[in-house]
Amino acid sequence: MPFEDLIYLFDIVGTLVFAISGVVAAVERKFDLVGAFIIGLVTALGGGTTRDLLIGSTPVGWMLSLDYLWVVISAMVLCFFFYRQLARIRKGLFIFDSIGLGLFTILGLQKALNAGLSIPIALMLGIVSAVFGGVIRDVLTNQVPLIFRKEIYALASLFGGVFYLIGIEMNFSSALNAFISIGIVILIRSLAVKYGWQSPFLPLSEVEKIKKG
Amino acid sequence: MPFEDLIYLFDIVGTLVFAISGVVAAVERKFDLVGAFIIGLVTALGGGTTRDLLIGSTPVGWMLSLDYLWVVISAMVLCFFFYRQLARIRKGLFIFDSIGLGLFTILGLQKALNAGLSIPIALMLGIVSAVFGGVIRDVLTNQVPLIFRKEIYALASLFGGVFYLIGIEMNFSSALNAFISIGIVILIRSLAVKYGWQSPFLPLSEVEKIKKG
Amino acid sequence: MPFEDLIYLFDIVGTLVFAISGVVAAVERKFDLVGAFIIGLVTALGGGTTRDLLIGSTPVGWMLSLDYLWVVISAMVLCFFFYRQLARIRKGLFIFDSIGLGLFTILGLQKALNAGLSIPIALMLGIVSAVFGGVIRDVLTNQVPLIFRKEIYALASLFGGVFYLIGIEMNFSSALNAFISIGIVILIRSLAVKYGWQSPFLPLSEVEKIKKG
Repeated sequence: MPFEDLIYLFDIVGTLVFAISGVVAAVERKFDLVGAFIIGLVTALGGGTTRDLLIGSTPVGWMLSLDYLWVVISAMVLCFFFYRQLARIRKGLFIFDSIGLGLFTILGLQKALNAGLSIPIALMLGIVSAVFGGVIRDVLTNQVPLIFRKEIYALASLFGGVFYLIGIEMNFSSALNAFISIGIVILIRSLAVKYGWQSPFLPLSEVEKIKKG
Repeated sequence: MPFEDLIYLFDIVGTLVFAISGVVAAVERKFDLVGAFIIGLVTALGGGTTRDLLIGSTPVGWMLSLDYLWVVISAMVLCFFFYRQLARIRKGLFIFDSIGLGLFTILGLQKALNAGLSIPIALMLGIVSAVFGGVIRDVLTNQVPLIFRKEIYALASLFGGVFYLIGIEMNFSSALNAFISIGIVILIRSLAVKYGWQSPFLPLSEVEKIKKG
Repeated sequence: MPFEDLIYLFDIVGTLVFAISGVVAAVERKFDLVGAFIIGLVTALGGGTTRDLLIGSTPVGWMLSLDYLWVVISAMVLCFFFYRQLARIRKGLFIFDSIGLGLFTILGLQKALNAGLSIPIALMLGIVSAVFGGVIRDVLTNQVPLIFRKEIYALASLFGGVFYLIGIEMNFSSALNAFISIGIVILIRSLAVKYGWQSPFLPLSEVEKIKKG
């Protein structure tokens, strides 16, 4: 399979897994058909949309093809018929979710570099592409975004992006570079889950002490 | 009255009714002058703004004229003097709200088609134009968006848009097409209210069962 | 110090103070590293980002330089080492926060005028530049935006903007005009704090009465 096709396949699978996670969240909140569609859509495509808006790349990318709309609709159909199974194997989707996280990071990063933005800004836009769909999902379901509190999700994206930039510097082939970067993301997330890694900013006890004092 | 003027009149009336619904929501939450203005504005203009941003049609449409700003200010003045009456006749505004919903759908859809986007994407942007003002209003007032749960609001918009597309295909005149599409929206919403139509995505009992199981 | 350098200095200091207020809010909600960074960033840069998106000035301004990213990172470093002190002297930051509010208003207003927009729309975009960072911060931390309820924050920005427009009309020099406008903002906020000014839209008692009746 040529490299471009593989990227395309990963992109579609990643989008599907993100959309499923959105639709499942909507079902848990008893949203109706419209709610499930919108939450599925923004979870899967909200990150890339935010990136494209910030760069000024409009109409935003996914609107130029019908593929992504079909992926979201497929996620709804899958959830409609296999909700029970999908809710059960959710953790099994972890690996695909991590592939999506890594791929969206490097696709976003590359798009920002192509737009002539500086490396640190491009790195940030890569992370935005990968994580802002989930942020918008959480805002629309009236919750504090998960990534602000519990996960090293965004940090895994950051490290994947950094390795991708190193790979560019070292003239790795696109394919090798993509595989290494996505591998790093999968590795970090797996280790984080296994060892319960967190990324506190200030020790909670410290903050409590200050509040009392 | 020429057709263009009628569209303009409907546009202004629809915007006014949407803005009033926003200001009333702000008053109920005891927001101040600034809160009432911002909520009125985003409820009335947030949908078209989202559409214009996604298409890349900037500066966003309503900023190129003062009419819409005046409409929002008028909504505030009306609420200031007639809040009691407006809160009481809110259901009487239903018909104007439905006209706004239908008109914003087809104006948004047409704008997306004019921008060269495909029919399914244009249909989606028509719905976004009509319903996202309410979504942003609900997010800013810290509530789960109403359309995710309780209404066939967005589906009425969808059907209005579909009929509009059929009308284009059948070479209906713009005026006839607009009237039919808006009529469909009014009809669907009226029937939905009368017969208590909902659009559940998964039967709630099913989800409960899964959660327990 | 030449005028441009002073504006730049104020811009950096204002951004830093806004970012600190965001990071402090994130720490209080026990957000982690990622949450603190994102909240700091959107609080400081969200207003200008919203303005740039609405005007269509993309890539959004702050992404074209690394200065603003460094300011946000500096805010995090400062909060990491001096959180206790910063939380304590928060009121002492009031004056810098007001300088930021005033400066962001007139910079935003001027940018909108330069984009050819009308005076009322430019005035509105000036206010958006100054206050929407805080609105997005509150939405992301799942709270009703503070400026909708408690502060004359946005009105101080409005008055600063109006005086700036008068200054343009009267051919004041840029420097004089900026100083007067920012001074007005500081003055109004100080008076508002001292005398407990609020800006209710409808008297609360009135709304209560209506709800009961």
